[in-house]
Amino acid sequence: MALVASVGAETQKQQSALDRLIGLLRTDLDRVNALIIERMDSPVVLIPQLAGHIVAAGGKRMRPMLTLATARLCGYQPEAGERPRHVALATAVEFIHTATLLHDDVVDASDLRRGLATANAVWGNKPSVLVGDFLFSRAFLLMVDDGSLEVLRILSTASAAIAEGEVLQLLTSNDTTTDEAAYLQVIGAKTAELFAAASRLGPVVADRPPAEADALESYGRNLGVAFQLVDDALDYSARQAELGKTVGDDFRDGKITLPIILAFARADDEERIFWKRTLEDQEHEEGDLEHAIELLRKHGTVAETIERARQYGALARAALAPFRDCPEKEALDALIDFSIERGH
Amino acid sequence: MALVASVGAETQKQQSALDRLIGLLRTDLDRVNALIIERMDSPVVLIPQLAGHIVAAGGKRMRPMLTLATARLCGYQPEAGERPRHVALATAVEFIHTATLLHDDVVDASDLRRGLATANAVWGNKPSVLVGDFLFSRAFLLMVDDGSLEVLRILSTASAAIAEGEVLQLLTSNDTTTDEAAYLQVIGAKTAELFAAASRLGPVVADRPPAEADALESYGRNLGVAFQLVDDALDYSARQAELGKTVGDDFRDGKITLPIILAFARADDEERIFWKRTLEDQEHEEGDLEHAIELLRKHGTVAETIERARQYGALARAALAPFRDCPEKEALDALIDFSIERGH
Repeated sequence: MALVASVGAETQKQQSALDRLIGLLRTDLDRVNALIIERMDSPVVLIPQLAGHIVAAGGKRMRPMLTLATARLCGYQPEAGERPRHVALATAVEFIHTATLLHDDVVDASDLRRGLATANAVWGNKPSVLVGDFLFSRAFLLMVDDGSLEVLRILSTASAAIAEGEVLQLLTSNDTTTDEAAYLQVIGAKTAELFAAASRLGPVVADRPPAEADALESYGRNLGVAFQLVDDALDYSARQAELGKTVGDDFRDGKITLPIILAFARADDEERIFWKRTLEDQEHEEGDLEHAIELLRKHGTVAETIERARQYGALARAALAPFRDCPEKEALDALIDFSIERGH
Repeated sequence: MALVASVGAETQKQQSALDRLIGLLRTDLDRVNALIIERMDSPVVLIPQLAGHIVAAGGKRMRPMLTLATARLCGYQPEAGERPRHVALATAVEFIHTATLLHDDVVDASDLRRGLATANAVWGNKPSVLVGDFLFSRAFLLMVDDGSLEVLRILSTASAAIAEGEVLQLLTSNDTTTDEAAYLQVIGAKTAELFAAASRLGPVVADRPPAEADALESYGRNLGVAFQLVDDALDYSARQAELGKTVGDDFRDGKITLPIILAFARADDEERIFWKRTLEDQEHEEGDLEHAIELLRKHGTVAETIERARQYGALARAALAPFRDCPEKEALDALIDFSIERGH
């Protein structure tokens, strides 16, 4: 009973960290949401339908909030009559994120054989890919309207790196020899690049010196790594079920994440045979997920992954330190805790 | 025997039209090919592998040649020491084209059930989608390096329109009520947009007045429509087999192209039942393709489609008329004939 109460209080505290940021950015976020609707419109009605479905499901708007909050932290004020740049660029960031979600959902015949269902199982692969392309192009049009080549460079560099990271992730899938360095390279690209770019856009629109842009990019990058580490830990945690998501998706996909890498390194012969059968050969039996979770618990690797996230969180916090105290700084700081504490 | 000789001579004449353009642009094309190799490189080796496979298979380099030839037609000369802009932008155009090819190849489970095989059947859907995204991002980086917001706007607008056109094509698939207007909207977007954009880039880098840019954009757009009309006619023509490609791909896919739209409009009750079974219900029997070709021949719709292409070719030619006579103009003119005559 005491435990339940404590979890409840913890959840409440985390919730309030995110809520504080949302409250602070309410007006800007409403503008982003309006611009999302406006710019995903098309006479081809399937496009706003499908895009709207994904944008709505996307939910937290973490990445655009990074652009909005860092812009405000850096004192950005739209000039009179000017369309607020941070709102347009936050929208571009969300479009790029949504496009990568749609493309990440693409399934192969082998996935279908293994009974995996995604949004694409409903809409089909092809519409999802094409609507992703549409959103990606519209993201670039938003940047062209903004008119800054620096912004265009930041986001096209990030996009290329994200694609590279996703390909690298495919190559490490089902490969139990993947080491921590390769894993960090994957999450550094597929997740942290967009967090970093989104956070750099704030100081750029505020026309702040490169040192501030570098600091906030570093904040975003480390936050992104921490966020993904916790995501990967949650996939094997009962906490995930509490958050209303499926447990074990990565395991069924054969994704090699840090909890697995650490457990495989410490595995005895029998355990290695189990990991190779389930992850490399993709042969799954009843009770495999439960056994996998048991092995991760035995070697303490989920907790260790969250501990690693905490270290990246500390780096993110250090990058924020030089900035003046203000509600935005406090909220960006609280976002670090939110990203990590949801893992418990 | 006389017929064979005549086809041979015709093929030779067409070949020489394309060869003349290639010969004229040899140096620039070699630079484009070198830049393609340079800019598709990645430490993630699957990326240059897969991209190289598609770029090599792509072959004709029609679209980048449009940028190169229109730039030269407009008298573009790179400034001393400057990296030639038309070469960089022609490479961006080819990357966008390659990305759309990769994304167009994405298959759904239903395609696999119908026994369709594409490049993606070999590499898998997911790598193809992600490598497409990578090339698309790299195309934008090439434009950012070029530094012109006008160029960025031209190609991001075209990319969004291409995606819209491809979604619209999906929606008209298997729908025998599709009319000519909807079909023209699809090919105007999915094919002609990039031809138009590629041809506009030449006058833009040469800093020519908007009227010239509009004229060459119109040349590209009409050429693109003609090119796609002939492509769609060839899919039902023995000529396609001579060119080393499969006949009947569109028919098996249930794509509603002009030869079909015209034949369906003129069909009697029995013929409509045939078209609905094969195209709408996708129920195929031995001999269906042969019967379809017979019906198209009966109603003369393949020849009529090529005749329509000839009309768009005339519009493309008219758009070229105001430009000074020079080898580039002659080659761009010959490209119209090449695009149409390959249909015979």
